Amino acid sequence: MPRPIADLSRLCMHTMTTKPWPLAQAVREYAKAGIPAITVWRRHIEPYGPEEAARILHESGLEVVSLCRGGFFPAETAEGRRIALDKNRRVLDEAAAIGAPVVVLVCGAVPGMPLDEARQQILDGIGSLLPYAESLGVKLSIEPLHPMYAGDRSAVNTLRQANDLVDALGSPWVGVTVDVYHVWWDPELERQIVRAGSSIFSFHVCDWRTPTRDLLNDRGLMGEGCIPIPRIRGWVEAAGFRSCTEVEIFSTEHWTRNQTAFVTAIKEAYLRFC
Amino acid sequence: MPRPIADLSRLCMHTMTTKPWPLAQAVREYAKAGIPAITVWRRHIEPYGPEEAARILHESGLEVVSLCRGGFFPAETAEGRRIALDKNRRVLDEAAAIGAPVVVLVCGAVPGMPLDEARQQILDGIGSLLPYAESLGVKLSIEPLHPMYAGDRSAVNTLRQANDLVDALGSPWVGVTVDVYHVWWDPELERQIVRAGSSIFSFHVCDWRTPTRDLLNDRGLMGEGCIPIPRIRGWVEAAGFRSCTEVEIFSTEHWTRNQTAFVTAIKEAYLRFC
Repeated sequence: MPRPIADLSRLCMHTMTTKPWPLAQAVREYAKAGIPAITVWRRHIEPYGPEEAARILHESGLEVVSLCRGGFFPAETAEGRRIALDKNRRVLDEAAAIGAPVVVLVCGAVPGMPLDEARQQILDGIGSLLPYAESLGVKLSIEPLHPMYAGDRSAVNTLRQANDLVDALGSPWVGVTVDVYHVWWDPELERQIVRAGSSIFSFHVCDWRTPTRDLLNDRGLMGEGCIPIPRIRGWVEAAGFRSCTEVEIFSTEHWTRNQTAFVTAIKEAYLRFC
Repeated sequence: MPRPIADLSRLCMHTMTTKPWPLAQAVREYAKAGIPAITVWRRHIEPYGPEEAARILHESGLEVVSLCRGGFFPAETAEGRRIALDKNRRVLDEAAAIGAPVVVLVCGAVPGMPLDEARQQILDGIGSLLPYAESLGVKLSIEPLHPMYAGDRSAVNTLRQANDLVDALGSPWVGVTVDVYHVWWDPELERQIVRAGSSIFSFHVCDWRTPTRDLLNDRGLMGEGCIPIPRIRGWVEAAGFRSCTEVEIFSTEHWTRNQTAFVTAIKEAYLRFC
């Protein structure tokens, strides 16, 4: 087990966790709550545009940890894949604009496309994107998604696969995101975290509810579920990870709560269950 | 790709696929539809008792492929684990009574129990059950369940894990069930099917819908989703498997249909998409 968490100095909030809040309100509330860092979702940048969003973020004093999200590389046609790459270049521009050092990649899948084909297209897509990412000084982080999303969101479903991609790409500008929600079940998890080592670019937390009532939007607040978060944090830290713990909770239930009270609950849960 | 399916001679129905039908009606309808084989769920035996169920099955002329299901070994206390083992012995008695050569195991999980502990308890549980299974001439088949069930249904979530258990137990009375719904996403699937070889005791099919609206009861009829069933059947057959293809569909949507029409649709989907 890692050392208990003593303070909020490494807590990062995803804007999607408080989805109802526009960016300006989110940064105000996070700062007021003593949360030092933020990961920004594109939907929260959109109403402002990247320049205005960058100004809001800069003035808040919050550390921008990453931008969510790029990816979705596979497509049925070459034209579709070219469009996906163009879109990813715009995502990288956005990251550079707001000062996000990392873009998190949800790699994509096309229902009915053989997974090995999707996986090859993902490898090719990231490879094509890499020079542009490097030219902007923005890193790409491959987030393996839970196998229940293999049909339509990501054909990269284990940390082993993400590590294999990082190895194949062989660049310090590509790494992995460990999100406990997606990987907690994996009997290989500890071994693959050790293997990932310094290529772990980010660490996301929430909890797995039993029962889970919805595949997308029923994530739990830390402590509401069965994921051994401190144990996984211990593995990640033993691998050398020293950056933030990012709270990413998609939850229709929590989004309908008073979001200020929810942020208070998140701080308590972070100190107690992470 | 394997050879196309020419007839119904290797089609097996799970009674849960037509959940609303009592056993007597299910066997009548399957036989009338030209389906030669059945896998029986315990809930469909219960209203009759094993002896009466055995008589119904015997008179139907259907081949009994397996009994679903035993398992659920992990428990917080030694007493809980002892009760689970006793229950599994009664499941084996039931299998012997109805002439089922195989009991399928859903291995179990306890929310909050560390998965490695649950996995050890599963290994111990199956090991303890084996002598009794062998004495009755009933095989035990470990079914890896999709990782989305790791919290509360099974801590065995990949075919690799199931194969590891089979290796550790080292008995011809233990094997694995390959259910496409649980394993289709796995990048290691083909390799682990090769490894399983003659220890593949059963092969289950249905389909993965995108989107999937419910974690438990939204399985698709073959052809309604994105699982490459013929490809996986090809791997299983190349590994030497020659037994039935078992249709196991949990679907609130399909259960509310006319079940006779559903069986007709299953036969068509089996010939076309398996």
